[in-house]
Amino acid sequence: MVGPFGGTTAAQLLQAALLHPERLGEPVALTVNFAAPVADGEIRFLARPVRTNRSTQHWIIEAHQAEDLVATATAVFAVRRETWSDVEAVMPANVPEPDAVPRMPVKGMPAWPQRYDMRFVEGAFPAAFDEQEQAHSRSTLWVRDEPERALDFASLAALSDSFFPRIYIRRRRRAMIGTVSLTTYFHADSALLAQVGTRHVLGVAKALNYRHGYFDQTGELWSPEGQLLASTHQLVYFKD
Amino acid sequence: MVGPFGGTTAAQLLQAALLHPERLGEPVALTVNFAAPVADGEIRFLARPVRTNRSTQHWIIEAHQAEDLVATATAVFAVRRETWSDVEAVMPANVPEPDAVPRMPVKGMPAWPQRYDMRFVEGAFPAAFDEQEQAHSRSTLWVRDEPERALDFASLAALSDSFFPRIYIRRRRRAMIGTVSLTTYFHADSALLAQVGTRHVLGVAKALNYRHGYFDQTGELWSPEGQLLASTHQLVYFKD
Repeated sequence: MVGPFGGTTAAQLLQAALLHPERLGEPVALTVNFAAPVADGEIRFLARPVRTNRSTQHWIIEAHQAEDLVATATAVFAVRRETWSDVEAVMPANVPEPDAVPRMPVKGMPAWPQRYDMRFVEGAFPAAFDEQEQAHSRSTLWVRDEPERALDFASLAALSDSFFPRIYIRRRRRAMIGTVSLTTYFHADSALLAQVGTRHVLGVAKALNYRHGYFDQTGELWSPEGQLLASTHQLVYFKD
Repeated sequence: MVGPFGGTTAAQLLQAALLHPERLGEPVALTVNFAAPVADGEIRFLARPVRTNRSTQHWIIEAHQAEDLVATATAVFAVRRETWSDVEAVMPANVPEPDAVPRMPVKGMPAWPQRYDMRFVEGAFPAAFDEQEQAHSRSTLWVRDEPERALDFASLAALSDSFFPRIYIRRRRRAMIGTVSLTTYFHADSALLAQVGTRHVLGVAKALNYRHGYFDQTGELWSPEGQLLASTHQLVYFKD
């Protein structure tokens, strides 16, 4: 992969707005564009509220290293009200409990998967790149932070980027990849996040289209009780 | 709806980067955040290439009216290469040809649907708000610009916002709505757009989750030959 785990950068960009003294409400949408690989060393975040309305607030957030812009983000925050609510997406049925699914071995993996407890029900990361192309790239897994940690907006933003690039699941062969743009919609508010606490959430992911060096994938993160916490989409560069 | 058709604003924001003398390649990702309703009158667009790499370019684009910021956008442009390509999303099957589907009557509708020729196969805009709640909000339709016009990136960006808000299809009742954030991934390059020309494209759209004043919907735009031209996602404010 080109550069380190983008989920960390996404979480830091969002956190820069969350910690800002002028922040209104809670995040409902976040888009991160990864402009360059983040290097080891100092990174500075600049969060600007560019428009504040009565119940919504728009942000532009930048990440810099030395003189270089390495990532940009936009975010929308909002003060929510109770309304009619319903979920139309379908949570996978008949999924075994997290305790009944073995944790993915992380020995020898990069640092970032070691910071997650992932339990794949379907579409695991291939144990070997045997080049046996699969019919689809769908994955279903239980996932939580490792060590465990109560879910908050920053960790939910990072989890949105924790789905392995679909091209590895689909083609089971090496490819150079890098996420170029990541969008997450937060359906959960802080009260719902608190209900989830440190438990696993159910992730599902699939690709839509691969073409001429870019593919997109889409994911959902569900609470154990069947609330859609976030939906997330990303465009990924690849070189085969 | 709060404000005019966001698709026009999205197209204009993208066009500001497309027309910029420093532009590299073609758009692959666009996110628009709608900060305030666009009013009749002058609107100014400021497009800045914030990072240019060898084959990708990152943009921040703003739209202003008088002293007010009314929309922000980020875009990623890229020079594409030929690679392994495949589509995983499934185009609806057994859809009748556009000529076999009647055009949606637009008399009495706002200006923007009058600028489209929409032919609904499934999930049409309700002829009356009879409050008969539907099981889902899925729509399938043939759509093209009216008057007809060859497809380009600007019109594809606008088409991405041409799916009626899903809450109207689902609940068949009035609600105040406004898109707050719109993300589109362009799978088509200009060669593929030229193949489509002025013909209809097939649109599909559905909602994922409605909760506490916001819902998200996702859409696909397909060429008649079954190429996924763009996938698009948006978060919508609603008040019931």
